[in-house]
Parts: sequence; C-alpha cells; structure tokens
Amino acid sequence: MTATQPSADALLGAIAFDGDGLVPAIAQQHDTGEVLMMAWMNRDAVRETLATGRVCYWSRSRRALWRKGESSGQVQRLLECLLDCDGDTLLLLVDQTGVACHTGKRRCFFRRAGAAGLEEVAMLAVDAAKLYPKGQP
Amino acid sequence: MTATQPSADALLGAIAFDGDGLVPAIAQQHDTGEVLMMAWMNRDAVRETLATGRVCYWSRSRRALWRKGESSGQVQRLLECLLDCDGDTLLLLVDQTGVACHTGKRRCFFRRAGAAGLEEVAMLAVDAAKLYPKGQP
Repeated sequence: MTATQPSADALLGAIAFDGDGLVPAIAQQHDTGEVLMMAWMNRDAVRETLATGRVCYWSRSRRALWRKGESSGQVQRLLECLLDCDGDTLLLLVDQTGVACHTGKRRCFFRRAGAAGLEEVAMLAVDAAKLYPKGQP
Repeated sequence: MTATQPSADALLGAIAFDGDGLVPAIAQQHDTGEVLMMAWMNRDAVRETLATGRVCYWSRSRRALWRKGESSGQVQRLLECLLDCDGDTLLLLVDQTGVACHTGKRRCFFRRAGAAGLEEVAMLAVDAAKLYPKGQP
C-alpha cells in the first residue's frame, strides 16, 4: 500500500454487495498486467485487506476468511484497490509472490477455448505438492 | 478470433455456471493489459460470443442478451477466451472500440480507495451523451 492507509469506510459504503454479502475481486499483477485470479470478498475481507495491505478473500467453499498465501506462502501484497462504475466489482492491483493458482500455475486462467477444445496455455508454474506440503487446505 | 472458430461445446461443458446459470467474464484489452470491465454471461451469450467473435453478455438488470456496443458502437472484438482453474470465471482478451464504460470512461474501474475516500482515476473518456444519443438503454 501507499504510506497512507486507504479509507475502508468510504469503500465499504460504495460497494454493492450481492445477496450473500459478497463482491467479486479481480487480482491483477501491477507491473505485468497479468490477470491472476478472481475470488470473492465480504466486508471483513475488504476491511482486513485494506488494513494489512495483504489480500484476504472470503472462501465460499470453506465459509471462512481466506488469507491468500497462508498455507502456500504465495501471498498477494495490495498496491491499489479500484471499484467499478456500479460498485459491484473490485480490481486489486497486487504484487504476487510466486504463483497465484492452487494448481501451481502462475495464474488461474490457463485454459484457452480453441478449435479442438480447451488448450492449456504455457506459463510459469511450480509443483503444487511443494506449495502445500501438508496437503491442500 | 483466430481463423479457426473455437469449440463452444468444450468450453460450455467445462464452465461451472452459478445457480442462476451465469458465469462472470472479465474483459481485458489484449495489447495494453487494461482490465476494462466485468460482466456476466449465460450459455447463449458464451455461444454467441464464440460464434460471432463479438462479445455478448447477459444483462442481469434487463434480463436479456447484451450485445456490447449495440447502442453505443463501443464493441468488443474477441481475441481469446480463457477459463480459470475451477471453471467459474472467464477472462476475455478483447479489442475494445473506444471506451468500455457506459459513463464514457475507458474502463469501469475508475474509483480508487484512497486515504481521503474514493478518488477518481484519470483516464481516457468521452461524453456519455454522445455514446447514447437516444438515451441509455
């Protein structure tokens, strides 16, 4: 984050959370422009992310705050948080340590619709077993 | 699109549509990396987008197919369609004519969370009244 912490209240007041109290958040690598992933945030996740400068999502499957990188070490440092015109989507400019995807790929968008079906896109990857030595959470 | 049309069936079979039959789709300008907007697609919107090479969303408010640029002329040509690891988000690499946002801004993410509240980010913009001379649909 910049030296001065952004105001969570102003942002939270402007977000149009959905019926489940969630808002989608797109994570983009700040310098390369790579779209890394999309996940969801609730009010607590937004507040924690702005307060700590480390991205925290809401896991819909685990129904818990999901501090990105807590198990894998692949954290996302927040540089900028942007809200869209109708307040229902966030764009997070981040600095991603290592890889963003739980499969070990740099980013979650690694399947391309091609003429013969879905094709895997080549990109930086690490061994997923090394990301989660105790098993995936 | 590339010369060969991508297979809609393979993609549709791999998408995990939500309970409303929708999937979020992020539009990114293919050459600059700008994240332009996020909107939703149903099966018909995905099929039409792949068939025509022109991006078509599903408007949740109008409950109708939303052929991006139909009223404003600000169309999105599809270059690549990517699916994420768990199949619940699309990333569209597009070539955006003019501006993506109905406000006249180049992209929908023009409000940044800052210390003093939400700050508007400077970017290319056009007069929204000129985009919709007959009023916004």
